[in-house]
Amino acid sequence: MQKKILLRDDEMPRQWYNVVPDIPGGLKPPLDPETKQPMGPEKLSAVFPMGLLAQEMSQDRFIDIPEEVLEIYKIWRPSPLVRATNLEKALGTKAKIYFKNEGVSPVGSHKANSAVPQAYYNMKEGVKRITTETGAGQWGCALSFATSKFGIDCKVYMVRVSYDQKPYRKSMMHTYGAEIVASPSSETNIGRKILAEFPDTPGSLGIAISEALEDAFGRDDTKYALGSVLNHVILHQSIIGLEAKKQMEMAGDYPDVVIGCCGGGSNFAGIASPFIPDYLEGRKIRFVGVEPASCPSLTMGKLAYDFGDVAQTTPLLYMYTLGHDFIPPGIHAGGLRYHGMSPIVSALVREKIIEPMSVHQLECFEAGVLFAKTEGIIPAPETCHAVRAAIIEATRDLNDPKTILFNFSGHGLIDMASYDKFYSGELQNYEYPAEALAKSMANLPQI
Amino acid sequence: MQKKILLRDDEMPRQWYNVVPDIPGGLKPPLDPETKQPMGPEKLSAVFPMGLLAQEMSQDRFIDIPEEVLEIYKIWRPSPLVRATNLEKALGTKAKIYFKNEGVSPVGSHKANSAVPQAYYNMKEGVKRITTETGAGQWGCALSFATSKFGIDCKVYMVRVSYDQKPYRKSMMHTYGAEIVASPSSETNIGRKILAEFPDTPGSLGIAISEALEDAFGRDDTKYALGSVLNHVILHQSIIGLEAKKQMEMAGDYPDVVIGCCGGGSNFAGIASPFIPDYLEGRKIRFVGVEPASCPSLTMGKLAYDFGDVAQTTPLLYMYTLGHDFIPPGIHAGGLRYHGMSPIVSALVREKIIEPMSVHQLECFEAGVLFAKTEGIIPAPETCHAVRAAIIEATRDLNDPKTILFNFSGHGLIDMASYDKFYSGELQNYEYPAEALAKSMANLPQI
Repeated sequence: MQKKILLRDDEMPRQWYNVVPDIPGGLKPPLDPETKQPMGPEKLSAVFPMGLLAQEMSQDRFIDIPEEVLEIYKIWRPSPLVRATNLEKALGTKAKIYFKNEGVSPVGSHKANSAVPQAYYNMKEGVKRITTETGAGQWGCALSFATSKFGIDCKVYMVRVSYDQKPYRKSMMHTYGAEIVASPSSETNIGRKILAEFPDTPGSLGIAISEALEDAFGRDDTKYALGSVLNHVILHQSIIGLEAKKQMEMAGDYPDVVIGCCGGGSNFAGIASPFIPDYLEGRKIRFVGVEPASCPSLTMGKLAYDFGDVAQTTPLLYMYTLGHDFIPPGIHAGGLRYHGMSPIVSALVREKIIEPMSVHQLECFEAGVLFAKTEGIIPAPETCHAVRAAIIEATRDLNDPKTILFNFSGHGLIDMASYDKFYSGELQNYEYPAEALAKSMANLPQI
Repeated sequence: MQKKILLRDDEMPRQWYNVVPDIPGGLKPPLDPETKQPMGPEKLSAVFPMGLLAQEMSQDRFIDIPEEVLEIYKIWRPSPLVRATNLEKALGTKAKIYFKNEGVSPVGSHKANSAVPQAYYNMKEGVKRITTETGAGQWGCALSFATSKFGIDCKVYMVRVSYDQKPYRKSMMHTYGAEIVASPSSETNIGRKILAEFPDTPGSLGIAISEALEDAFGRDDTKYALGSVLNHVILHQSIIGLEAKKQMEMAGDYPDVVIGCCGGGSNFAGIASPFIPDYLEGRKIRFVGVEPASCPSLTMGKLAYDFGDVAQTTPLLYMYTLGHDFIPPGIHAGGLRYHGMSPIVSALVREKIIEPMSVHQLECFEAGVLFAKTEGIIPAPETCHAVRAAIIEATRDLNDPKTILFNFSGHGLIDMASYDKFYSGELQNYEYPAEALAKSMANLPQI
């Protein structure tokens, strides 16, 4: 039996799959917050290049991957599909557990899959500079890497708590030539305003998005990039699932359940979406999106129009949300601390195609340590959520030989400080944040 | 053209190659420091299992890799051979540059190749606990990972300066279940003695080896493991070159020059040795071992019998050495700060089969940053030495279409603090350490 199922460079998919036209009931369009009317590409083109906006709105099921993007993908793609035989043994389960190892990218996570095409389409349209935000730092590293390949300047607003806790992420971005600043910063109006009011704030993704957007709005040579949530990001991430389908076939297998952790939803939708056409044709397959119990947009949020950021500068997106001013507890999976969820994943949850699941952080770190001891690779705290869910599925009935596929979205080598806190007993679980939630949910925009 | 040349699990070599019988003039045996006579396996068996001692002394050219070791190798092996097309373009060279990416192992370096069989043979002989030393932390992580696979306890003496500078390495070892202590420690006689005399010492590999050996000598259930230098370690690392030969053949290519960085010599000998039979049959191929100018055992040392450690507890090895009490400057490639060199590499330098080259640390970090910007992957400071040498070879004559193969021994994601120091201008080059060297060379044992 092959432990790793590998594809050659020339077996890499040459098209992304766009799930949007296959979503029963479709997607509701983003709305202009001023007019409450659907927002067209003209207004969005202030911050996104047309190439990406065309993908954002596209109803085509397949979209060609540009040759230049394929060339850079080859640095790490196709990524391996691995049978977690040692984990299976340790669990004593008859289930088969496969994982798609996106940790092999140069920046250590799936984020590079979208960073490269985003940098490419900006370059094609003459953009000289891109701003973005980053939570745990995975996306910031990915965009820094991608922009370095196309000679574009990159400025990253990094959530302050991560900026302080993850110095190695800063150094990585620096190595790729990016400029990094802690958010909230004194370099934007919104940043200065928040700093004046809350000088000790740890920051949040919602604040950092507002700063990066303000910066991009203010300069003609600059556009903005987002690492999750949007349709074009999920389109790019579909390469994960497209490869995994081929590889499962090579292994002579097919998943009964596909699992991914959910922050903005892109890595999960990336692995899951290419299997959805099979589901719609009647194939029995479950899709489980795993989120932290402390930031439970899918399991406790509301499906509604809401802003993507704190400063209310983004279009209104129709998504499961905890309210744009919800500040989640400081759990150590920074990439999952987002109040909303991608409209695509939200619609698939609404259609009961995707099952949401929530887990607590301590059980996730335990799962991560077991994975490290058995399969050798230390998962990122975000990825630990997917590992935990895979273990739950594999041990519900130890004699059920079901086939599990999960996305190993990234390794944790740069997040070891979080593991240290876990070992020293400093981490805790957080209960359902009822009070904060009641407050933020009351602030949802009225549509 | 394939950028990555991949082998399937079932194409992995099933035997290691032992270069010892092919070395013209052979190896001189290790000597017992008391009697100055060749040291037999009986005495060494106090610290090494017989399975490894048999390999240490073996004159067989090929040795079977145990099935259990192959199974664990499959977690990351076969490793990719990659054509550094983007680096070639940036250099404007017609040379072809290939690198063997050993950074894909769970611990991020080639060290796992020997850690797994070392843990395996100890397990086979009922050993319950292994002690070792680690400099930069790569070997400590690898052995911690490997012992976790075989249910063996592991204690790592980590050179104090690394212990303080590389907290993530500690956390990784902890994750795999190992016990870690800063060396010199108060847990051994030699450690206490050195601490009493030099309470602020940064430590050294030579001291840490002495502590790990003392610990192993003191307990019946405990043996010792070394991550480089010895013949059996180089045997295990030969899998790098064996795979690379197959992969170069798949690419329709053959190297004109094979490059690796040299600390104890194992990663370099690992990639180079399987090509040596071709050289001996008349094939034109160069082997370049790259060491730091600040710790120049091959280029400035003496070929002589010397101890492997400061406390003079190891057998005497016939090797290029700077003297066992030479303390190299604090360069940021901790894995290359060793006073000696493996007897195998030493003999091949003596025979003028291997060419030594020395480089300074600033040019190495510059090379590492260029590599990161072009090929995406950030090299470990040690690996930067090999990258630098590959660039030197590729740019000697930009129109010479020579084929270069180098070993990418490990990634630098856990060494970003060193890059930070490079960026901030805190790092310097070190001149030939004439004074320290004169002193330590005067202390070579008289044979």
